[in-house]
Amino acid sequence: MPNQPIITLTTDFGPSSPYVAAMKGVILSINPDVRLVDITHAITPQQVQEGALILAETTPLFPTDAIHVAVVDPGVGTDRAIVYVEFAWGRYLCPDNGLLSRLAERAKPLMMVTVTRERFFREQVAPTFHGRDVMAPVAAHLSLGLDPAELGPLHKTLKQLDWRGADKVANRISGEIVAVDSFGNLVTNITRAMLADVPTDETVAIRCDDHETRNIFTTYAEQPPLTLVAVIGSNDQLELAIVNDNAKIMLGVEVGTPVEVVW
Amino acid sequence: MPNQPIITLTTDFGPSSPYVAAMKGVILSINPDVRLVDITHAITPQQVQEGALILAETTPLFPTDAIHVAVVDPGVGTDRAIVYVEFAWGRYLCPDNGLLSRLAERAKPLMMVTVTRERFFREQVAPTFHGRDVMAPVAAHLSLGLDPAELGPLHKTLKQLDWRGADKVANRISGEIVAVDSFGNLVTNITRAMLADVPTDETVAIRCDDHETRNIFTTYAEQPPLTLVAVIGSNDQLELAIVNDNAKIMLGVEVGTPVEVVW
Amino acid sequence: MPNQPIITLTTDFGPSSPYVAAMKGVILSINPDVRLVDITHAITPQQVQEGALILAETTPLFPTDAIHVAVVDPGVGTDRAIVYVEFAWGRYLCPDNGLLSRLAERAKPLMMVTVTRERFFREQVAPTFHGRDVMAPVAAHLSLGLDPAELGPLHKTLKQLDWRGADKVANRISGEIVAVDSFGNLVTNITRAMLADVPTDETVAIRCDDHETRNIFTTYAEQPPLTLVAVIGSNDQLELAIVNDNAKIMLGVEVGTPVEVVW
Repeated sequence: MPNQPIITLTTDFGPSSPYVAAMKGVILSINPDVRLVDITHAITPQQVQEGALILAETTPLFPTDAIHVAVVDPGVGTDRAIVYVEFAWGRYLCPDNGLLSRLAERAKPLMMVTVTRERFFREQVAPTFHGRDVMAPVAAHLSLGLDPAELGPLHKTLKQLDWRGADKVANRISGEIVAVDSFGNLVTNITRAMLADVPTDETVAIRCDDHETRNIFTTYAEQPPLTLVAVIGSNDQLELAIVNDNAKIMLGVEVGTPVEVVW
Repeated sequence: MPNQPIITLTTDFGPSSPYVAAMKGVILSINPDVRLVDITHAITPQQVQEGALILAETTPLFPTDAIHVAVVDPGVGTDRAIVYVEFAWGRYLCPDNGLLSRLAERAKPLMMVTVTRERFFREQVAPTFHGRDVMAPVAAHLSLGLDPAELGPLHKTLKQLDWRGADKVANRISGEIVAVDSFGNLVTNITRAMLADVPTDETVAIRCDDHETRNIFTTYAEQPPLTLVAVIGSNDQLELAIVNDNAKIMLGVEVGTPVEVVW
Repeated sequence: MPNQPIITLTTDFGPSSPYVAAMKGVILSINPDVRLVDITHAITPQQVQEGALILAETTPLFPTDAIHVAVVDPGVGTDRAIVYVEFAWGRYLCPDNGLLSRLAERAKPLMMVTVTRERFFREQVAPTFHGRDVMAPVAAHLSLGLDPAELGPLHKTLKQLDWRGADKVANRISGEIVAVDSFGNLVTNITRAMLADVPTDETVAIRCDDHETRNIFTTYAEQPPLTLVAVIGSNDQLELAIVNDNAKIMLGVEVGTPVEVVW
């Protein structure tokens, strides 16, 4: 383990939630040398799919020995398992409810353990707050060098979520908006790979609701302010943006609105 | 002192406020080895009682040598004192306006000092920002090992807030909602201790406004989605929740709404 | 370089944005010993002027070897330069779009470099996210001791924004609201220096929209609750506040509303 191991936190507790501070207190009480990094605490409450997307987008960028704790846990207190999962690019601790299913598409886990050994939990475990009473202390013990095999038996199968991908038929791709960022840019589930043989000129039309733009650009700022533009965003997914304005508000669309590329 | 002492910050400056960044800059300029942890900056402006509740809920979970700086300070610039207070579970620096009164119910302070020694303040002290100009530099000096007795004379009495507790008469407990978390769960001032001899079955009714539920459960997820349930939450207080939804919005209630338990 | 160099982040990505987490992951992958500090991520999207004000208000308080990365970048992907700029009080990495123009009023930069050397960028640079793919890795390399001269050629001129200052003519200062803090206090562009020869008694009137108050006080709390008061705030600028309430809401004013001081 490095001198100051990294633990990241991803939750749906809300920004500035004291629940997050409680988890940090528990971690630092066990290992005061941990370096804590917030991924986000603004996951829409109980939206496991949104959590899975954000974990996939951010956590592989961290050092490979970082421990990523994710608490989006609508089933807290039921018999859903808590799992430790090791990938080549990082270590994860979270409920087994699909939070890792986007990451698990990239590669097979190197190790999976069902977390059951109570000696690494807090003395009293509140049935509504496993983030503070189970995941935080277990992550802290792992950061001190605990062998994950000590946490419980091997875990067999990771829960998968169903992902609705975009469809490509002849000269048409049908997808939808899957996220809206803080600029109001509309991120779709249409990937760079699907667009590989699509022309990037005036012959391609991108439609969202009853709005249309032509051409796929490489950056927002090539077009005049207030223009609707399509670009391949920083996560290799097609995005729609209004130059210098908020596309979500201007277009009146939202997550789930269909997006079509036709050429 | 540890190699990298911990200073936590709790304020009503608002999430992402540059005032918080200013305090961090001042602290790190004096001691670049401090490990900063945000408790929350989303205390409702000038709500000392809310700050007192959050300090009590979170800070005792931290290492006992952590220094907790709390700035909810409607009286900034008046003659209210700034105090250094040491408890068995942690060290605090804040205005003496009741912020510590919830913590002080648990145990007597080990040491209390009125912070007056200006040589540990910033050179210029703005009368509207003692967080940046007094508490931040004093906390940084303490983190370097400064003896708290150097900060000023012993402090006599800590200001107390009046807490409205729940009442228990015969087979009825009358309390109220005291907080709403980011999930919309309603936290009451009815404690686990008060519920010790209350049955946990269909003979107990929990009422909030004109809504009623029966039975006290141990976790939210035991009941079907959209059911109103009562549970004892992670802070040993009775909570009302709507399974997989937001009870505050669904019930149209708020902090201060009466809650009754009858059996 | 210190053992644990400080990198601060200032962006318009929104609080809790996963884009911020992506930048942190990239930085820590290159230098896991960096100490990350968030200044704010709540700059109004693409408001360079607001970013410039906050950088000037907060970053000079940090240790002088801190590296401040600022990403408010409406021109991302165009030919606007990315610059490394060194002042006596700190080191900056940002697009050359005016973000440093408030700081540059205080002193001449010690060194300016146009950041062009791609070997310090991420392997793939997304044209819409230079924060993650250019500024984050370059900052991390600087924190490891990289000589800034290695980043590219010397930079000639820093882009300046036009600042509208307040005007002083005879016994009248005409300014405007330039910021509103989380308490609803109205920060103006009327500075302490301009007020040096203004009386602080009942003969001075401060007007904002159709509201008027008299006298300039040193702190909010000297007056009764709900009074409109004028004070010189913690950044040496005249502020208007409602004691224990929110002046922005109560007065129905906003950034840009004229403020006059007459005596």
